[in-house]
Amino acid sequence: MLEVLDLDKQIPKETYEQVFPEMETRLGAAQRAARAAGVPVVIVFEGWDAAGKGKIINRLVQSLDPRGFKVHAVGEPTDTERFYPWMWRFWNLLPGAGDIVILNHSWYRRVLSERMENSKEGDSWRAAYDGIREFERQLTESGVVLVKFWLHISKEEQKERFEALESNEAMSWRVGKQEWKQNKKYQEWLAATEEMLERTDTANAPWTLVEATYERYVRVRALERVLRAIEGEVDRRVSAPPPERKPMPEPADWPPPHKTVLDRVDLSLSLSREQYEKELDELQERLLNLEYRLYKARIPAVVVYEGWDAAGKGGNIRRLTQGLDPRGYEVIPIAAPTAEELAHHYLWRFWKHVPKAGHIGIFDRSWYGRVLVERVEGFCTEAEWKRAFQEINEFERQLAEYGTVVVKFWLQIDRDEQLRRFQDRQNTPSKQWKITPEDWRNRDKWKQYGVCVAEMIERTSTTYAPWTILEANCKLYARIKALRTVADAVEKVLDKR
Amino acid sequence: MLEVLDLDKQIPKETYEQVFPEMETRLGAAQRAARAAGVPVVIVFEGWDAAGKGKIINRLVQSLDPRGFKVHAVGEPTDTERFYPWMWRFWNLLPGAGDIVILNHSWYRRVLSERMENSKEGDSWRAAYDGIREFERQLTESGVVLVKFWLHISKEEQKERFEALESNEAMSWRVGKQEWKQNKKYQEWLAATEEMLERTDTANAPWTLVEATYERYVRVRALERVLRAIEGEVDRRVSAPPPERKPMPEPADWPPPHKTVLDRVDLSLSLSREQYEKELDELQERLLNLEYRLYKARIPAVVVYEGWDAAGKGGNIRRLTQGLDPRGYEVIPIAAPTAEELAHHYLWRFWKHVPKAGHIGIFDRSWYGRVLVERVEGFCTEAEWKRAFQEINEFERQLAEYGTVVVKFWLQIDRDEQLRRFQDRQNTPSKQWKITPEDWRNRDKWKQYGVCVAEMIERTSTTYAPWTILEANCKLYARIKALRTVADAVEKVLDKR
Repeated sequence: MLEVLDLDKQIPKETYEQVFPEMETRLGAAQRAARAAGVPVVIVFEGWDAAGKGKIINRLVQSLDPRGFKVHAVGEPTDTERFYPWMWRFWNLLPGAGDIVILNHSWYRRVLSERMENSKEGDSWRAAYDGIREFERQLTESGVVLVKFWLHISKEEQKERFEALESNEAMSWRVGKQEWKQNKKYQEWLAATEEMLERTDTANAPWTLVEATYERYVRVRALERVLRAIEGEVDRRVSAPPPERKPMPEPADWPPPHKTVLDRVDLSLSLSREQYEKELDELQERLLNLEYRLYKARIPAVVVYEGWDAAGKGGNIRRLTQGLDPRGYEVIPIAAPTAEELAHHYLWRFWKHVPKAGHIGIFDRSWYGRVLVERVEGFCTEAEWKRAFQEINEFERQLAEYGTVVVKFWLQIDRDEQLRRFQDRQNTPSKQWKITPEDWRNRDKWKQYGVCVAEMIERTSTTYAPWTILEANCKLYARIKALRTVADAVEKVLDKR
Repeated sequence: MLEVLDLDKQIPKETYEQVFPEMETRLGAAQRAARAAGVPVVIVFEGWDAAGKGKIINRLVQSLDPRGFKVHAVGEPTDTERFYPWMWRFWNLLPGAGDIVILNHSWYRRVLSERMENSKEGDSWRAAYDGIREFERQLTESGVVLVKFWLHISKEEQKERFEALESNEAMSWRVGKQEWKQNKKYQEWLAATEEMLERTDTANAPWTLVEATYERYVRVRALERVLRAIEGEVDRRVSAPPPERKPMPEPADWPPPHKTVLDRVDLSLSLSREQYEKELDELQERLLNLEYRLYKARIPAVVVYEGWDAAGKGGNIRRLTQGLDPRGYEVIPIAAPTAEELAHHYLWRFWKHVPKAGHIGIFDRSWYGRVLVERVEGFCTEAEWKRAFQEINEFERQLAEYGTVVVKFWLQIDRDEQLRRFQDRQNTPSKQWKITPEDWRNRDKWKQYGVCVAEMIERTSTTYAPWTILEANCKLYARIKALRTVADAVEKVLDKR
C-alpha cells in the first residue's frame, strides 16, 4: 500500500490559510455535536519515529475544548499492565459517550515495535491481529468513531529529521539508539508495517495513510478525515430512527418443540448431608492449595455464576470462597450498570474487573446479562444482544489466550423448587431481605428466560470457556459439583505447565 | 503500650461456641444496615508476620455478603504507584458509601516495613505520620468507619509459627529471609511499632490491640470490635437529624466593611495586542522546554483555574496548553460530581486525577468547589465546608511534599465586565453555547461569591501552594501573567535541583 504514496504532496500556503482556520472552527462545532449526540471518538496516530505524530496531535487538540478530550502516549506496558490480558489497558483508555481520546501509538505497538524489538514469531502474531480486529469491530459496531492514521515518511526524510533534532540541544534527547535502529532497519519495519496495514484495514476501521513530509498537508488531511468521521456519525445518529428496545414476547411454543440442554438436566441428583460435609472439607483444602499454586504460577482464573433467582448462587459462592485466602480472590457482584458504565461499550465494565494474573475473579452474574435480562426486558436492542454471542466468545477467548482459566456455571432448578424457596424466604424473617418484587416479576417470565438460557449455553459453550450446568434442586449437590469443577479445571491447567 | 498485653488470653471452646455464631449473624445484619445507611467501612489489619492476619480476615469475610466487601493485600508500591504521592494508592482503595474494604497491611507499611528495611531517617517520618493522621481524620470526619487492629505475638510464638510453616510443604514458601529477619530483629521492630501506635492512636481512629496467641480469642475480639464500630455509626446516622444544607444568605454588609484581597486588585492592568503576541510566543516556547524538563526530572505539576463565570478560564487554559506537547499535560474539567463520586469523600475524585510524576494536570475548576459553589448553593453542610479549608491545605501540602509544583489562579473581573461578556455571548451566534441560565443565576449571587472567594484566598494561600490573582478585565494581560507565573514556578523548582 505504502509504495503508491506520493511523499511530495503539499499544500500551498495561501490555500492552507484559506481552508484551515475554517476547518478548525468546524472541528470545535463537531466536538460539541458529538458531545450532544453521545458519540465517543477514538483517534489513533501511528507512524514512523519523527513523522510528526506529536505535532499533529498538538495542532488537532488546539481546536478542541480541553474539557472533552484526553491524549495518551502508549509506551511499553507497565508491570501492572503485564498482569492483565494485552487488550486490558486499551479497554481502560476508552472514551465514554461524547468524549474524545487521542492516542500517540496504540494497540498496534504489539505488532510493530514489540514485534521488531523482540522478534517473537509464529502464532502469537495471528492471535494479536485477531485481538485487534475483534476489538476494533466491537467498538465501531457499538457506535464508537474510530480513525486510524499512519504517518508516512521516507528513510531519507527520517534521517534528516533525526539529525535536525540531534543538533538542537533541547531536543536531542528525543533521538536515541532505538530511533536510529529504526532508521537503519527501515526496510524491515516497512515490511512489518505493510503487513499490519493489510491485516487491519477493515471496512469498519480503515486506515488513513498520510504522506507526512509536509506539515501543512498533514494538518489539512488529518482534520478533514476526523471531521468527516465525526460529522458522519453524528448525522447518522441524528437522522436514525430511535433504537427500538422492547421486552421479549412470551414464546409461542411452550414447552419448546425441540429439547434443549436444560431439558436434559437431571434435577433428581442429590447428596446426603454427611457425604456433603466430608467432600466439602476435602475440596476446600484442595482449593486453598490450588489458589496458592495459581498465585505462584501467575495464572488468573475467572469463575462465572449465572442461574435462576433463588437457585443458590450466593450460598454456592460462599462455599467456594470459605476456605480460600481472601488476598487471592475477589467476588464481583454485577448489578444494573451505572451511568458511566452505560456510556461505554457494555463489555467495558467487565474488562475493568478482569482478575490480575495469579488471582481469582468470581462473578456473581456477569456479561451474560446482555443475553439474559437485557434481552428479556428489552434493555438493549435486538442487534445488540444478537451480536453479543460473538463478542462474548471473543472476550473469553482473549482471556483464555492470556492463560486465564475460565469456568462458567448455570444453576438450574425447576419452577416448583423456585416457588418453594421464594415462599420460604418470605416466611422466614431472617431471609426476607433476600426476596424482592423483582424476583416475582422475573418468575413470571420463566418461559422467556428458558429460551434465552438455552440459546446462551448452546452458543457460548466453547472449548476454552465451557459451561457447566449445576443440578441445583439439591443445594448440597450443586455446591460440591461447583467446587470440584473449579478445582479440576485449575489443576488441569497447572499440571500442564 | 504493648508490654501490658496478656498474651495468654484465650476463650474456652464452650464459651466460643456459644457466642461466636451469634456474632457472625449480627455481622451479616450489620453489613446490610451499613449498606442501607450508606456507611463506608475500612478495616485495617496490621501485626507481626505469622500473627494470623490472613486467617482472621478470612474468618471475618465468611459472615459477610461477598457482594459488599473487598480485601486488599498491600505490598510494596508498584512502579506506577511510585509515580504518585504516597497516599494516592490508598485513596484509590477507599470504599464508597455502604461498602466494606478490608486491608491486610496498609498505609502503615511506610512507617514499619519500609522504615525497617530502608532505614530512612529524619523528617520523612514526621511527614509520613502527619500524612497518616490527616488521612484518617479526613476519612472519619466524613463518616467512614475506620477500625485498626494490631495483632500481637511474642518473639517465641512467632519463631514457633515460622518453624511450623516451614515444616509444612505447602506452606514453607511463606517463610523467607525477610520473615526470619523480622524475628531476629524483633526488638527493633517492637520499638518502631510502639512509636507507630503512640503517634497514630487518635481519638477518631484508635488502635485495637489484639493478643493474637490464641485464634478463638482473636476471632471474638475482632468481630466484637467491628460490630461495635459499624453498629455505632449506623445508630448514630439513623438517629441523627438529617444534615441541614441551605443556601448562603446574602451578606448583610455590602460592600464588606473590611477590604478583602479582591478589593486590592487593579483591574485596569492591560496589555496591547502587539506586546501580547510577542510575549505569548516567547512564553509558549519557554513552557514547552520546561515541560520536557519536568518530564525528564519526573516532577509533577498542578495548575488550578478558578474564577468568575466568563472571566476567561477557557481561553487562558488554551493559551497555556497551545504550545505544549499533549503527551505531557491533561486538562481536567470539574463538573458536578457523579453518583459514584458523591458516595466517597469529596477529595476522592481529585486524588484520582492527581498528575503522574513528570506530567502537568490542569484543573478547570477544582476541589475549591466545596468552599465556593457548594457553600453558596448549600450543596454541602456548614460543617463540611468549614473543615474543607484545612482538608484542602493538607491535600496540597501532601502534593507539595511529593515534589509537585502547585500553581493556583483566581481570575478576577468586575461585575460590569461580566455583564458585557454575557451580553456579547448572547448576541453572538457562535458563542451562544457558552452561556447558560446557570451563569445568570450565579451572577445574582455575586455578593455571596465575593465573601467566599475572599475567605478562600485568605485561608488557602500557603507557601507551598500560593494563589495568584489574575487581573482579567483585560484577557490578554491575564493570559500572559498566567503563563509567566506557571513558567516561573516550574523553573524555580527545576533550578533548585
